[in-house]
Order: sequence, then structure tokens, then C-alpha cells
Amino acid sequence: MEIKIVKTTTPKEKPAANALGFGKYFTDHMFVMDYSVEKGWHDARIIPYGPFEFEPSCMVFHYGQSIFEGLKAYKGADGGVLLYRPYENMKRMNRSNDRLCIPQIDEDFAVDAIRQLVLLDKDWIPEGEGTSLYIRPFVFGTDNALGVHPSHTYKFIVILSPVGSYYAGGLSPVKIWVESEYVRAVRGGIGAAKTAGNYAASLKAQEVAEKKGYSQVLWLDGVEQKYVEEVGAMNIFFKIGGEVVTPVLNGSILGGITRDSVIEVLRGSGYKVTERKISIDEVHEAYKNGKLEEVFGTGTAAVISPVGELCYKGEKMVINNNEIGEVSQMLYDTITGMQKGAIEDKYNFTYKI
Amino acid sequence: MEIKIVKTTTPKEKPAANALGFGKYFTDHMFVMDYSVEKGWHDARIIPYGPFEFEPSCMVFHYGQSIFEGLKAYKGADGGVLLYRPYENMKRMNRSNDRLCIPQIDEDFAVDAIRQLVLLDKDWIPEGEGTSLYIRPFVFGTDNALGVHPSHTYKFIVILSPVGSYYAGGLSPVKIWVESEYVRAVRGGIGAAKTAGNYAASLKAQEVAEKKGYSQVLWLDGVEQKYVEEVGAMNIFFKIGGEVVTPVLNGSILGGITRDSVIEVLRGSGYKVTERKISIDEVHEAYKNGKLEEVFGTGTAAVISPVGELCYKGEKMVINNNEIGEVSQMLYDTITGMQKGAIEDKYNFTYKI
Ligand SMILES: Cc1ncc(COP(=O)(O)O)c(C=O)c1O
Ligand SMILES: Cc1ncc(COP(=O)(O)O)c(C=O)c1O
Repeated sequence: MEIKIVKTTTPKEKPAANALGFGKYFTDHMFVMDYSVEKGWHDARIIPYGPFEFEPSCMVFHYGQSIFEGLKAYKGADGGVLLYRPYENMKRMNRSNDRLCIPQIDEDFAVDAIRQLVLLDKDWIPEGEGTSLYIRPFVFGTDNALGVHPSHTYKFIVILSPVGSYYAGGLSPVKIWVESEYVRAVRGGIGAAKTAGNYAASLKAQEVAEKKGYSQVLWLDGVEQKYVEEVGAMNIFFKIGGEVVTPVLNGSILGGITRDSVIEVLRGSGYKVTERKISIDEVHEAYKNGKLEEVFGTGTAAVISPVGELCYKGEKMVINNNEIGEVSQMLYDTITGMQKGAIEDKYNFTYKI
Repeated sequence: MEIKIVKTTTPKEKPAANALGFGKYFTDHMFVMDYSVEKGWHDARIIPYGPFEFEPSCMVFHYGQSIFEGLKAYKGADGGVLLYRPYENMKRMNRSNDRLCIPQIDEDFAVDAIRQLVLLDKDWIPEGEGTSLYIRPFVFGTDNALGVHPSHTYKFIVILSPVGSYYAGGLSPVKIWVESEYVRAVRGGIGAAKTAGNYAASLKAQEVAEKKGYSQVLWLDGVEQKYVEEVGAMNIFFKIGGEVVTPVLNGSILGGITRDSVIEVLRGSGYKVTERKISIDEVHEAYKNGKLEEVFGTGTAAVISPVGELCYKGEKMVINNNEIGEVSQMLYDTITGMQKGAIEDKYNFTYKI
């Protein structure tokens, strides 16, 4: 399918590097494609970024049949543009589509659409330390009808947002609240899909945690509320007695692409990494015995987030003296280095466009 | 707050009574109100039904911070217009709002907005047997920004849809699939809220059940996958050995307003009704012992849905010879009679506007 391109005649002014933040500004163009039962995916186009008209009966407002992805583009050391593992994001998008009864999207075509869009708006890629161009592909049902069933029409849209460094003052440890009341997801549910409802479900606990001074929530499993699952928008890793462990993908955890990269890089660097069930009691036990050496989150937004404190049922566990651990720092340097093309990418993660 | 009214200058043609279906046609007007942190809820207005412009970054597409309600208006026997328990819907709406971090809405004001809107479009209320005007209030976050946190701006909209009879050929039993793989909700989650994500989560199981010839899914609890919870958009009741039982509201089940009405009507008619945990094994045991006398669903759309067959792990339980039970029929006649003002409403359920 050919992508029709309509360029803007009124390019916007680009925001100042220090005002970027996350997801506040959008570039001059977006990619759009429509789906109908008769035509399949059709009318692929790159057009000026702008609003759409939606009827109030449009399904997405009512039933949340909607999925999204998140990845980043970087300006390379040599001036080229690099994407980070875009095919992995498109594969995950299709897994989410399947769980939400949304039609599949050709992954090669989608990566090519992203490539063309990013190249058109490449002057929007910020260059400061820790900055990047965030890419948000998303799909949602657009039938104008009430009644709970899969939509017959969809929109696939990709928008781009230049984003600032996640850590204003450089990499620094975060405080995390272990949630023992609210639950995000359960096996048999939609937790493994990147779908709107999971994020809606997370808002309340996040609000409560923030009021207590914690920046994120660590979710426990929905069945026993005992096993560690993941953080708001990150997967989680523990270094216990020299071994790195992370919760196994059990059907209610999102399979992070950074998580996958971290496992590969650690193994490639000689670390032992185990994916398995980890109870919060085991973490606490390791803490008491002085064996909880490092904790960190992994995700596209921050890449690596060292965890300085975990609070579970009122008990605070201060990790590694609230300092950045050795493994966290190594992973951050290695992955961000590859993303920017500053260090050799022996894993084939980056995709030059 | 005053409601500004702008009437349409191009009223639409009304659909034929036999073409109504559910949620396909919308009336000439809608109610809209906006929220911002500075102004609170403001700019309440009734305007011609029509589309809105939304940026692709609008939060609702990405994070599903969205809740809705569903209730009905009826043309009474004396030509007056009746709503059914609208205050209960607005109370539930605020419980959903709370769970989803959406600001509260004044319940009296919201009922009055619905009253004014329905009266303006009262010629759209169909009059055939089993027909009504479906009222869909809904609220969603509208910030144009990415990042998972509660929106700072919202829209509250009410749209109206004339709907046909749920049962084309009169009340008749449905076949229901007991779901033992997929899970809709779990305690600590969002199951008790009427929020978009719950419906998105239900699509896949519903699709699988339909392919097997079942019209709806009966969900089991998320923890043990053992206790009966509710049907897609209905609560569920069992008559076992003379006693009527229904799952107790445990935090993952939506508290249906029809469910509540049914409990009152049954008790008012001398039946014993118990709200408690009911395992699917207990239901199956009762079936084998010939004690499973009736099963029915309750919800705004169909009011009462007699269940003629339950299928659990391949085993089919045919209930009451696949015929409408005595209790189901009595409840259907009583509640729809009150809704239309045809029989005396000793429970004070109807609200004449
Ligand atoms: C719920 C959740 N878990 C984990 C992640 C991390 O995934 P990734 O590394 O692909 O960004 C994200 C963010 O994308 C997320 O939203
Ligand atoms: C999940 C769910 N359960 C139960 C019900 C029944 O609730 P009510 O009787 O208020 O319509 C509905 C429909 O509204 C529903 O969506």
C-alpha cells in the first residue's frame, strides 16, 4: 500500500529544549490509516498533525477498545536517525490487537510508515542528553454505535512528541510504593496487552501513592497479592545475592522491550539472569539479610530507573543506600549508548532509517 | 448552574419502529458539560446532536479514563414520560467517577439535565411493546497530553437512542457460556465501576462464546475462577430448591440497578432472596439433583433474561426445559409494567418528568 503524503503549509515553532517534558508537544505531521470490513486497512496517509471529528457515540469513548505502543527515535552521533527495536513494538502491537479483537496490522508496513513519518519530521528530534522523539502508534474502534461488541471500523494513528530527559538532574533513584490493596491485572485478563483499560485501572493507586510521597506503584499479582508483577509503566528487576531476577511473563505482565533488552545485555555481559515468580516476602527477606543489592525498573520512558526505596505495608526498604547501583548504571550507559549510536550495538537493537 | 439550550434547526427523520435495534440511532439533541480545574463543571448546554473535534493526543484514546451509565425513559400509559430510578444511576456514576479519579458530578443537577434533554426530544420515545428511549450519560478525560495520570479536563455528555425490543419475538431464554479461561475483573480492580476497560476486557471471551453458539458469557471470579460473578451486561440470579440466590457484591461485580429492583420486588412478593458467594460447582450440583429451577439475568437492556442453557467446561445444563420460568415471567411483567406506568409502583422506582 502506498502512503500518500500531504505536507503542512504552516510548520509549528519548536519548543525550547528545556521546556520539553513528556508528551506535551507534537510534531508537524502524523500517520493515519483506516480500517473497514470491506476494505481492510486502507487510505494510508501522512498529513498535518491536527484534530479529527468524532461522534459522541464513537465506540472508543464507551468501551475502550483501544491499544497503543511507545518507542523512541534518536539523533545518532553521525547525524543519522535511529529507531530502537521498532519491529518488537509492532509485534507487541499485534498481540495487543489480538487480545482486544482488533484486526492485525502488517508489521513491516507499520515500521515503514513510522520510518517515513520520523524522517519527514526529523528536525523535531531533540539532541540534548537524555532527550528523544517519542513515537506513539495507537489503534481504536470508531463505530458510531452503542452495544458491547468489537467495532467494525478502526483508526491506526502515529503521532510524534519530542521529549525531555526523564531525569532532569541525571539518573537518580525513585521511591516506589508496593500496592497491597488495588490490583492492576490478573491471569486471564488484559494485563499483558498494552490497552487503555490497564492504565485507567492504575490511576487510583498511583494517586494514593503520590500523596504518600512515592512516584510509582509496584503491582502484586491479582490472585494471591503476593508475587511481584511490574511498576506503572516499567518492568522490575532485583539483584539478590549476586543474581539478577525478574518476574516471569505470566500472562498478566506487559512484556517490556526494555526488559527483554536488559536480559540480553546482562547475559551478554556475563550476569546470571533468572525469570521466575518472586514473592514480595522473598524481597523483604533478602532486604533483612542484606542481600537485596539493587532494584531497578525498565521501560521506554526512563530506560533504567534505579529504585532507592520500596515501601510495603508501612515498612520502608532503603536499597543500596539510595544510590545508583553498578548494574543499573552499566545498563543505562550501555542501552542509551546503543540508542544514540555512541557505542557499538552487538545485539542488533538499533535500526538506522 | 443554568443549562443553555440551542435547538436544532434541522430535525432528523425518526427511524421506523421495526428498524430500531439497539444504539444505532440518536435523537436531535445532546447534553454537554465541561470540566476544568479552574472552573469545575461548567458550560452546561443542550445542543444539536453532532460530532466534536478531538486531537489525536486526547487522553481518552490512550488511557481509557472513561465511565458511562445506561438507563431508560418510557412513554407512560397516560402519555407522560417516566424515567426508571435515575438517581440510582447518577449515584453509581459518581462511584465509577471516584474509582477512575474523575471529579464528582452533582447528582440532582445531572438528573435535571437528563429530564430537560428527554423532554426536549420526547417525540423520539418509541411506543411499541418492549421499546424505550435509551439514555447514555458518559464522562471522559480530554487533556491533550500523553503520560499516565488523571486528566485535568473532562467532558460529561448525555446522548439518547430510541431502542427496539430486546426480544424480537417476545421474552425468550438465552444460552450462556460459563467462561473458565478469560477473566473480566478481580477484587481490588475496576470490576465494580462502569468503565470502558471492563467492556474492552470482555470482548475476546464474548467472541469465542458467540462462535460456539452462546449469546453471552457468565464470568467467574478472578481469584479462584470458581465463584459466579455476572454476565456481560447483566447480573445473574438462580432459583435453587425454592430459594432465590444471587452473587453478593464483592467489589468486582457491577451493582446493577435492575438487580437491586429484582431483590426488592422478590422480597415484596414473599420470596426469600439471599446474596452470597455461589460456586459454579454448587450450581452444577443443584442441576444434577434437579434443584436448579430457574436462572435469569437482570439488566437495563433486557430487564429480565431467562437463561435456558448454561455450558460449563463442555457440559450443558438445560434449565427449566429451556422455557421461561415463573419467577422470571413475574419479574418481567412487574418491572416493565411499572416502567411503563401500567401497574402500580409501590416501590417508588419510577420518576415522572
Ligand atoms: C505496564 C507497562 N509495563 C512495562 C512497560 C515497559 O515496556 P517497554 O520496555 O517496552 O517500554 C511499559 C511501558 O511501555 C508499560 O506500560
Ligand atoms: C457489567 C454489567 N453488569 C450488570 C449490568 C446490569 O446493570 P443495570 O441493571 O443497572 O443495567 C450491566 C449493565 O448495565 C453491566 O454492564
